[in-house]
Amino acid sequence: MTITLYELCGRDDRRFSPYCWRTRLALAHKGLDYRTVPVRFTDKETLAFSNQERVPVIRDGDAVVSDSWTIACYLEDAYSDGPSLFGGEAGCAMTRFFNIWVDLELNLKIVPLVAKDIYDHVDDADRRYFVETREKRFGRSLAALHAARGERLPAVRAAFQPARALLETRPFFAGAAPAYADYILLGTLQWLRMVSSYPVLEPGDPILDWRGRMFDRLEAAVRDVPAHDC
Amino acid sequence: MTITLYELCGRDDRRFSPYCWRTRLALAHKGLDYRTVPVRFTDKETLAFSNQERVPVIRDGDAVVSDSWTIACYLEDAYSDGPSLFGGEAGCAMTRFFNIWVDLELNLKIVPLVAKDIYDHVDDADRRYFVETREKRFGRSLAALHAARGERLPAVRAAFQPARALLETRPFFAGAAPAYADYILLGTLQWLRMVSSYPVLEPGDPILDWRGRMFDRLEAAVRDVPAHDC
Repeated sequence: MTITLYELCGRDDRRFSPYCWRTRLALAHKGLDYRTVPVRFTDKETLAFSNQERVPVIRDGDAVVSDSWTIACYLEDAYSDGPSLFGGEAGCAMTRFFNIWVDLELNLKIVPLVAKDIYDHVDDADRRYFVETREKRFGRSLAALHAARGERLPAVRAAFQPARALLETRPFFAGAAPAYADYILLGTLQWLRMVSSYPVLEPGDPILDWRGRMFDRLEAAVRDVPAHDC
Repeated sequence: MTITLYELCGRDDRRFSPYCWRTRLALAHKGLDYRTVPVRFTDKETLAFSNQERVPVIRDGDAVVSDSWTIACYLEDAYSDGPSLFGGEAGCAMTRFFNIWVDLELNLKIVPLVAKDIYDHVDDADRRYFVETREKRFGRSLAALHAARGERLPAVRAAFQPARALLETRPFFAGAAPAYADYILLGTLQWLRMVSSYPVLEPGDPILDWRGRMFDRLEAAVRDVPAHDC
């Protein structure tokens, strides 16, 4: 049975959400068939069946699951015959830590650098919603965030340091081969390249080398999304 | 055969090194007998057999292994019949990330807050060495670091946030029961309470609740070390 993934969609059908990418990549890791339903930020009605308002959501037969981490755990349990996303309980616990770290220390810090770029890629119908919610969250206009991003860039690049240090010890975050930890961070990098040409990571950064190794392993469609050069 | 652990020793035989604690706790997790040899900071000759100058070092028959992470990997491989420290390859990779994160984002940031307190607990023979190396590393006198610690405290407390967030999802960092990830952070907390009464963590912090759960699980000697109330 085909799983349905409800995922964020911007202008020109661009699917840039880092959290929806995590789910896409987890579904592919498990070898599961899925179809996608595009959802705009303000398209809350489409998600009413899930009793909450955020993507990603999956529908798998009678099961409805939201939140990228909860979905990953659901897939690991429901499709335990497929390749593991976590490699057991301790792997799951530590991958959860990595998930929290990427969310708090990378994604949240990156948003102010590319908020204006995201705005340029959201659907026309979502623009007002996006501006209002983000300017409220950051207490500054998107234009002001954009103008100040050069000041914030060094701290954001430095925030990746623990991830770089891990890649000195192994080719993928999950070890010899990619697993959910890798999809967590690849989601961040897909999001970035799909919305912005700003060099959040410096050319030559080992994180970009790892991204290349991921592209070599994954289906070409992951690499060949509409993206900026960065 | 009994393993020998060479570990840092301060005044009054106080064994406060966070990295040596990791090894102690890993040896106990594997159910291995060990004896300890105390080593002062400046006692480089005692470690000459290991071809490097830092503790922890273990000697296990003909094997000599240094560096807490390398020792943990050695124990996991050499004593694979015992309880696992990592729970498999992905668990090992992600625990390595946690290790890097604790080292970079917690331990390195905590040292300036308690450097003067550590000085008070190092062996007399080590005091001059300790002052010279730490003042060089931080570019300030221990007295100046001590005087400024209140300014640094909020950022250090905030740095623990990803760890707190994980503990909202499970009782131990490794999941339902402690494993090496827990020993990594418990080493930091043992170090702190053995050298300082400064409340790096606020009373009521969930990290301290977790420490209590660890003490309930581990042999009483771990809790009952000479320590300050904090």
